[in-house]
Amino acid sequence: MQLKAWRRLLKKEIQILKENSLESINKISTVASIGGGPIGAGWAAHFLAKGLYVKCYLHSENEIDDYKSLIKTAWETLEKLGIDKTASLEKMQIFTNLKESLTEVDFVQESIPEILNVKQDFYSQIDLFLNPSVIIASSTSGLLISDIVKNCNTKDRAIVGHPFNPPYLLPLVEVVASEFTNKLCVDQAVSFYKAVGKVPIVLKKEIPGFIATRLQEALWREALHMVANDEATPEQIDLALINGPAPRMAYQGQCMAFHVACGEGGMATNLDQFGPALQLPWTRLKAPELTQELRDKMVNGCKDMSKGKHFLEMAKDRDNAIAAILSAVKNNHPNK
Amino acid sequence: MQLKAWRRLLKKEIQILKENSLESINKISTVASIGGGPIGAGWAAHFLAKGLYVKCYLHSENEIDDYKSLIKTAWETLEKLGIDKTASLEKMQIFTNLKESLTEVDFVQESIPEILNVKQDFYSQIDLFLNPSVIIASSTSGLLISDIVKNCNTKDRAIVGHPFNPPYLLPLVEVVASEFTNKLCVDQAVSFYKAVGKVPIVLKKEIPGFIATRLQEALWREALHMVANDEATPEQIDLALINGPAPRMAYQGQCMAFHVACGEGGMATNLDQFGPALQLPWTRLKAPELTQELRDKMVNGCKDMSKGKHFLEMAKDRDNAIAAILSAVKNNHPNK
Repeated sequence: MQLKAWRRLLKKEIQILKENSLESINKISTVASIGGGPIGAGWAAHFLAKGLYVKCYLHSENEIDDYKSLIKTAWETLEKLGIDKTASLEKMQIFTNLKESLTEVDFVQESIPEILNVKQDFYSQIDLFLNPSVIIASSTSGLLISDIVKNCNTKDRAIVGHPFNPPYLLPLVEVVASEFTNKLCVDQAVSFYKAVGKVPIVLKKEIPGFIATRLQEALWREALHMVANDEATPEQIDLALINGPAPRMAYQGQCMAFHVACGEGGMATNLDQFGPALQLPWTRLKAPELTQELRDKMVNGCKDMSKGKHFLEMAKDRDNAIAAILSAVKNNHPNK
Repeated sequence: MQLKAWRRLLKKEIQILKENSLESINKISTVASIGGGPIGAGWAAHFLAKGLYVKCYLHSENEIDDYKSLIKTAWETLEKLGIDKTASLEKMQIFTNLKESLTEVDFVQESIPEILNVKQDFYSQIDLFLNPSVIIASSTSGLLISDIVKNCNTKDRAIVGHPFNPPYLLPLVEVVASEFTNKLCVDQAVSFYKAVGKVPIVLKKEIPGFIATRLQEALWREALHMVANDEATPEQIDLALINGPAPRMAYQGQCMAFHVACGEGGMATNLDQFGPALQLPWTRLKAPELTQELRDKMVNGCKDMSKGKHFLEMAKDRDNAIAAILSAVKNNHPNK
């Protein structure tokens, strides 16, 4: 009986925490976007388009003109796409004083240079000016949040919130917690990113490069090897991507692309048929061993994503999407 | 003087060869599509949509029903996209007798299983039935054409013509010659593929996996490593690609994506700033050494592709394309 009572209490407490968390998300009306590069400006433009107030911190006044032209470029596309009815560029304030930029903000998106000690210094200062309940999300694409917060007094509210460039268009945000992060901050950040139209993915583990950058980086390094060895030119690499895997990948990730391409057998056929090819030198990257466990994870993952659809139906959906994507590329080509 | 006369003669001869070559391209009205899988069927659908006659060879009568349903699925999308006014499914004939399927064809697209000795046997038979001027293009995605033609008597007309799935939608065809290939066959194949709406890329060297598959395979192996190590699920991998790098890559290859993202400095800034990151464990693939030569190849390649455009203009073009691509994906999503 006592155990049951405890459980009830715990459940209630969690419920209250969740409600508070949602409440605090609804209360996010002012965001600080820290950093004067394309990522900082891109985040600012995105938050502004969603109707939020944005306080921008730039390192130096010399950056202001370039920053404004980045915002202007982004804004033109955002207006065409449709901005929130409360959105306005008037809601943006630019500061070169860190303390002022952080006053009365509800969420911090940090996009300063990718230099570990610069980030560490910054995180040791930033928490002096901020209410401890305010989440600090780092746009870092390669550093670990555990390392970034080394000198920070409020490690529990720091996370990675890694966007893809341009942040005002591409929906992905990779959310990564450190061992110090309060789990509630992760939930709150996810709710906030969703509320502003993003697609957050919470990583299971803290790994260098996260998911999307690792995948992109593997491709990029193979590309550099090919150029270094005169196997391809940069132009051939770009042509190959644009006319080959990329238009399909914009609709169907690589797992489902292989799953649907292999007909009835799907990913199982793919792995059984092309498994031996994982040992071939089709890239400089060695493949992992295709264990039964890995095979099952891939096969079950694709089965779940298929939601019972027949492969021909999925192939049809894919084809419609690819046709539309190719025509979007063609119609928006500046040299058309 | 004698040298000049020789040069004139040589030039004239080349001109005649080119004209003959173009003539023979114009004469390609019947193509054999060999192989009953999605690639063979996809090529057949593509050639049919361009108004060509297609003779399809399947290994067994049991494959006919599946083959026809692949063609049907492709045809629906092709009709929506717009087929040639002379195009008709009536121009397709299905054979299970190889000799009959090769009678009076002007070009052969081979898409049989990716098993080296099966391909070798096939190439030793196929040239018995074909006029020696007919090009044989292999859809192989991973085998070397030098190996495939080992037992073939007419090695000079065999090339790789590697499509991307689905071949009736994605424009890429990677063309690779072996050491035995007649250079004119490469030119003819390129002209033919262009004439039927493809984007052929001729590889400088014969390497396993060619360009696009190598890039895709590097990404794929990194993905398998991540799943094997519980760093990501198949679903997270697909979500990350679809919402991150892929929509941009459908318009801008990875080289130009980095070039434009780095502002005024472009690829030079990218390599100088992120060069050290190539040593970081952002993927399991080790990067090549960033030599001055590699740096110059990358920087000059991107500069050439930019054609003098300012990065902000290119960023604007990219944004318009990404916005259109994302909306194409959204509007064509079966669950919208």
